[in-house]
Amino acid sequence: MDFAQIGRCFEENDCFTILTHKSPDGDTLGAGFALCAYLRDMGKKANVLNGEGFPDRYSFMYEGYEPQEFEEKFVIAVDIADPKLLGSGLAAYEEEGRIDLCIDHHISNKYYAKESFVDGNASAACLILYELFKELGRPISKHIAMCLYTGIATDTGCFKYENTTPAAHNAAAELIQYGFGFSIINRKMFDIKSHGRLAAERLAADTMEFFCDYKCAVMILTTEMMDSCGIEPAEFEGMASIPLSVEGVEIGVTVRQRHEQVWKLSVRTTETIDASAFCKQFGGGGHIRAAGCELKGTLEQVRVQITEAVGRLGL
Amino acid sequence: MDFAQIGRCFEENDCFTILTHKSPDGDTLGAGFALCAYLRDMGKKANVLNGEGFPDRYSFMYEGYEPQEFEEKFVIAVDIADPKLLGSGLAAYEEEGRIDLCIDHHISNKYYAKESFVDGNASAACLILYELFKELGRPISKHIAMCLYTGIATDTGCFKYENTTPAAHNAAAELIQYGFGFSIINRKMFDIKSHGRLAAERLAADTMEFFCDYKCAVMILTTEMMDSCGIEPAEFEGMASIPLSVEGVEIGVTVRQRHEQVWKLSVRTTETIDASAFCKQFGGGGHIRAAGCELKGTLEQVRVQITEAVGRLGL
Repeated sequence: MDFAQIGRCFEENDCFTILTHKSPDGDTLGAGFALCAYLRDMGKKANVLNGEGFPDRYSFMYEGYEPQEFEEKFVIAVDIADPKLLGSGLAAYEEEGRIDLCIDHHISNKYYAKESFVDGNASAACLILYELFKELGRPISKHIAMCLYTGIATDTGCFKYENTTPAAHNAAAELIQYGFGFSIINRKMFDIKSHGRLAAERLAADTMEFFCDYKCAVMILTTEMMDSCGIEPAEFEGMASIPLSVEGVEIGVTVRQRHEQVWKLSVRTTETIDASAFCKQFGGGGHIRAAGCELKGTLEQVRVQITEAVGRLGL
Repeated sequence: MDFAQIGRCFEENDCFTILTHKSPDGDTLGAGFALCAYLRDMGKKANVLNGEGFPDRYSFMYEGYEPQEFEEKFVIAVDIADPKLLGSGLAAYEEEGRIDLCIDHHISNKYYAKESFVDGNASAACLILYELFKELGRPISKHIAMCLYTGIATDTGCFKYENTTPAAHNAAAELIQYGFGFSIINRKMFDIKSHGRLAAERLAADTMEFFCDYKCAVMILTTEMMDSCGIEPAEFEGMASIPLSVEGVEIGVTVRQRHEQVWKLSVRTTETIDASAFCKQFGGGGHIRAAGCELKGTLEQVRVQITEAVGRLGL
């Protein structure tokens, strides 16, 4: 599908449901709320769904948003590479073959929707939407600009990471002119930490272990630790970058307990290691410098699996 | 002076000395080394000077740089708002009236040079040079692009702060296409922490206390703590922003032990409090959001002085 076809698809359909991925981040929510507002501005009915609800952290994107009543006729997944990422709350959409269109920027996209627009070179799903809206020509609101900016900024670490393209900067140059207070959003997204998050960072820092001549750092977040800090899962997302922030570390692994014996790994790497390939051996995937997977077993078993896999990298 | 006049001034002169400010940052050094390389590419002789030498942290900008031998004929100050910022090492340049041109982006510029180009709306001195070089039309090297990018990125907190303009994003969009590995530079400038710094942060976080309904945070760094981490004093500088990064905090105070009973306070505030006025009552000063002062006494006496002063703010 190309942009013109997506545009026709918006024109010819109505009653849209937009699906966002579990453990929602700025890009999936930014894309979801930007697309929803865009379709509503076109006079269409549209809602955004997340299997786990929308985290408070991103409330500035859905302030004033009210779900509409309608019989859903067209389903769009945004920033969702794999149907597993729908989470149990939305899994039925894929199981029943109800996802009409997927708009995504993950090279690892599973092409599970009836139609897909995947640009693996785009810094963010929000950047694809920015370019789509630009080509379609309809003016966007300040709110849409703010959602798109937030997705691009959060997925690029505020234009810091390698996935930041000239197109991402050009989009930001145009979007910040809508005057939505981007620096306040950035302070909220990148600088401010809740007391709970601060406590979680202190607990997690105490678990940090180094392997392979300090080139690998592994940090653990158990359910018990997370519960003791009393914060939402979304607040842990940014913590995955901590292990890689230590001087000399080339692969940083954050291990977050999902259930008794289920652990979510977030892997971040420097230019020497392919994070996506690393996670693929455990059935996961993602980007070349940021990927994820799930491991099963006791913490000790998981730690052994990680250190063995890191050992095979030959650092 | 306009860009065309500056261009003529480059053409008509030779043997340039470029001055950078004391406690050099990415913008003054980026502008210095970019301008020096640009003039040398024109076939001119040029050197960059700093009163304190160039810090290791920015070595990627001056790798391969060699001072040239010549009798200096034209002096340019970059990113220097006030001659005080030359430091004692370069003060004579201003005292003897030898600064021919100043290129700067501080609205507070003192116009101490014979000619000045000041754009208070530019995000960085490097952004002014980017626009100057673009207008003059001569192609720039990958090295120049890298120096300009570094200055723009560091002065805007990697495009995070309010001073980030559309022009800054547009410049970055073009500059990153030179392929100098901007993400590695950003990682070095914004993310990487030494093991010692990490240890210091953990120790300091354990001392963090909150007052006035969590609107004031005080963090302590004793000599003993700093010694145990084995790092240089310069590495503690950035830590002063930590207390203010906690949700709800309006005044963050970092207390660093200088001697047995001498303590350096670094005060950071949000838009509600004047940090400079706060420090003035203790004989210190600084900027409205970042200031400092010195207190004497035992840690307990210092803590009492701080909490009493914070109490008087009526938060």
